[in-house]
Amino acid sequence: MKCIVLLSGGVDSSTALSWAYKEHELIAAISFDYGSNHAERELACARFQASALGVPLHTIDLRSLAPHLSSSLLSGAAAIPTGDYDESNMRSTVVPFRNGIFLAIAAGVAESAGAHSLVIAAHSGDHAIYPDCREPFMAAMAEAIRLGSYAQLQILRPFIGMNKAQIVSLGAHLGVDFAHTYSCYCGGEKHCGSCATCRERRAAFVSAGVPDPTIYSAS
Amino acid sequence: MKCIVLLSGGVDSSTALSWAYKEHELIAAISFDYGSNHAERELACARFQASALGVPLHTIDLRSLAPHLSSSLLSGAAAIPTGDYDESNMRSTVVPFRNGIFLAIAAGVAESAGAHSLVIAAHSGDHAIYPDCREPFMAAMAEAIRLGSYAQLQILRPFIGMNKAQIVSLGAHLGVDFAHTYSCYCGGEKHCGSCATCRERRAAFVSAGVPDPTIYSAS
Repeated sequence: MKCIVLLSGGVDSSTALSWAYKEHELIAAISFDYGSNHAERELACARFQASALGVPLHTIDLRSLAPHLSSSLLSGAAAIPTGDYDESNMRSTVVPFRNGIFLAIAAGVAESAGAHSLVIAAHSGDHAIYPDCREPFMAAMAEAIRLGSYAQLQILRPFIGMNKAQIVSLGAHLGVDFAHTYSCYCGGEKHCGSCATCRERRAAFVSAGVPDPTIYSAS
Repeated sequence: MKCIVLLSGGVDSSTALSWAYKEHELIAAISFDYGSNHAERELACARFQASALGVPLHTIDLRSLAPHLSSSLLSGAAAIPTGDYDESNMRSTVVPFRNGIFLAIAAGVAESAGAHSLVIAAHSGDHAIYPDCREPFMAAMAEAIRLGSYAQLQILRPFIGMNKAQIVSLGAHLGVDFAHTYSCYCGGEKHCGSCATCRERRAAFVSAGVPDPTIYSAS
C-alpha cells in the first residue's frame, strides 16, 4: 500500500518511517514547521532520516499559524516547563488540535500524490495529556479522512498500543540511527535532559535496554 | 455560544457570518489564502463582510501548501473549466481535503481563542462533487474535532439542508451586501459569468427572486 509518513524527526516518527519502509510502499514523508522552539533541530533530523532511506520529504511551512495558536511551545524556550511529563506540568505545551491540523494537511498532500494511507506514530504514552493523540480522536479523524477523500485514505497508527520503550526497541531492531533524532522542547544543540520530553526519551532507552546515543546537557 | 465562522467571502459564508452574528456570540471570522486564482478578490470581500459587522478576522496564509496540492484552482485562470457545475466538469477544481484542512486549522484557532463552536456554510449543492462537503464527512470531522479539543468544539452547519437559492433568500433577509461577495473561480475584477461557480451564483439569485447586484463580463 502506498503510504506517506508524518515525520517530526523524533524517536517515534523516525521509527514509524523505518517501519513503513519495511512494511509498505513508502512514497514520501511529510514534516511541518509550525514555528516551535525546536523546529530547526527536529527538521534537520527529519531530513536526515528521510534521506537515509532515500524517501522524498515534503516540508510544509506553517509558521504563519503560530500567531493564531496559544502554546508555550511557540513562545521561546524559557516558557517550557521542566520536570516530569504529567498533565498539570505539560498542559501549557499543548498546541491546540496540532495532530488534527497535521493529519488534515497530510491527507491533502497524500491525495495529491496518489497515496492510499498515512502513517502516524501516536502511542499509548501520549494519551493522557493530548486529546488529539488519543485513539478515539484518531478513529474519528480516520473516518473523516476516509469519507473526505476520493482515495478513501486510511490512517495507519501502528504504535497506538505501544509505549515509548517498545518503540525504541522496535527502532533499534529496524536499524534507526537514534543519534539523528531530536526530542527536546527547548531546542538547544544538545538535549537539555531536564524538560519532560528529554526525561521521557531517556527513560524509554533505559527501559528498553537500548544504548542511548543522546548527549544531554544535564546528567 | 461563542463561535468562529469560516469566511471565504462568497455568498454562502457571508450569509453564515450574518446568521451567526444574529444567532450566536460571534467572536471572530477566519479566512484562508491558499494561493487560489481568486484569493485576492475573495479575501477583500471577507474583510468587507467582517468589518461591516465589526468582527475580527483571522487571515491564515497557506500559500506554502499550494506546491504540495494538485488542483486547477491553484494553476491560473486558464486552467478553470467553463460550463455547468457537474462532476466531470468540476473535478479538476477540487483542492484535496480543503474543507478538512480549513476545519482543522479553524479548530486550533477556535480553541486558542476560547470559542465553543465553528460555523461552516456547506450546503446541499456542494455534495455531489466534493467529498469533504458531504454531511457524512462533516459529521465525522465534527466528532474528530469534538474529541480532539479540550473545549469539545462543535461544528455548526446551518445550511447543510439548504440549496444556494435558499441561502441567497436568507442572506437577503439578513441584510447581507451581496455586491461585496465573490464567487468567480477565474479571479478577475468582474465575475466572468461563464465559469461554473458564476453560473451557479447567477442561477441562485434568479431562483430566489432576489435582485443580483453582480456585474458579469459575459451576459
